[in-house]
Amino acid sequence: MDISPFATRVTAQLPPWVLDELASLPDTLSTDEERMRLVHRLAGRNFRAGSGGPFAALVVESATGRLVSAGVNLVLDSGLSGMHAEVVALSLAQNRLGVWDLGQDGAEHELVVNWRPCAMCYGAVLWSGVRRLVVAGDGPELEKLTGFDEGPMRDDWAEQLEARGVSVTQDVLRDDAIDVFRAYGESGAEAYNARG
Amino acid sequence: MDISPFATRVTAQLPPWVLDELASLPDTLSTDEERMRLVHRLAGRNFRAGSGGPFAALVVESATGRLVSAGVNLVLDSGLSGMHAEVVALSLAQNRLGVWDLGQDGAEHELVVNWRPCAMCYGAVLWSGVRRLVVAGDGPELEKLTGFDEGPMRDDWAEQLEARGVSVTQDVLRDDAIDVFRAYGESGAEAYNARG
Repeated sequence: MDISPFATRVTAQLPPWVLDELASLPDTLSTDEERMRLVHRLAGRNFRAGSGGPFAALVVESATGRLVSAGVNLVLDSGLSGMHAEVVALSLAQNRLGVWDLGQDGAEHELVVNWRPCAMCYGAVLWSGVRRLVVAGDGPELEKLTGFDEGPMRDDWAEQLEARGVSVTQDVLRDDAIDVFRAYGESGAEAYNARG
Repeated sequence: MDISPFATRVTAQLPPWVLDELASLPDTLSTDEERMRLVHRLAGRNFRAGSGGPFAALVVESATGRLVSAGVNLVLDSGLSGMHAEVVALSLAQNRLGVWDLGQDGAEHELVVNWRPCAMCYGAVLWSGVRRLVVAGDGPELEKLTGFDEGPMRDDWAEQLEARGVSVTQDVLRDDAIDVFRAYGESGAEAYNARG
């Protein structure tokens, strides 16, 4: 067959405004609340910028609070359905540190994100090697307010993470997450679930 | 904070030998078996090449049998834990066609892969817009023979896909899949589960 039309590169680029948002912050973000406040700010700005849905995620070095990476949902921007905020943040952290396992040699990193990960990102968290997941919340509000499908999750999703060495912290600035989702829903933006 | 060390690009490159394998094939692969035979060949070659695990995937246009993309597991090659064969194949298909939804406007594409997708790729299948999933098999053989963890799956994983408009075909050249996994296990290759 003619192989010339085949694509050979997977690529996505973080919009420059994401790093601009970080420049004014201190070197370390010490508390879950400080980190989640940044996540909410990035999530709100992301959908208004048209890059993708109202989602953002950070990878943080647990011991120091050092920010290793920041990701936003880039589905529309990259044209790739898999470029959720969690995948972007985890990939950028692995790229920066040069390891595909963020838990290698006992290193402890955590993922901070503005809702319970979807069915795909749930697995992505596991394979990334992070040892802690911090979410603003879970529950039906996300799907109701934004129109996004989270996919078929297990009821014991958090227990399954804990059983694999990933501790889970929930309900960090939950109301602020819902404010962002509500603003998204009211903006008339397209909720891009697949298959039309 | 100093933003200069932050990574801003997610990227993975398909090794050239993958397209070389396609060049000698006919323009369309008409049957599930023809497609799966190619998947098994790519999966076996992939771990021997050191790019990642013994996994490969294809995106095919259902009506014509036209091959849209081929992916292999690139975790080791790219340094990204999320670059499973399914994610690579789906991303390359979306890149080539310029759509994040492979089911847009009623288009029908399918994903052919050499085992039931892991917990992450399960969600990736859903968000990609493919309307059919073809797997060589599922069951404990993969984890037993290779040492890879598939993650916490729902028992009704196939029904959940069907309920969302993705039909599932299983047990296509299952024994040949197991042969590849066995060869991988016997090769002494590293099974790269996260967190050490």
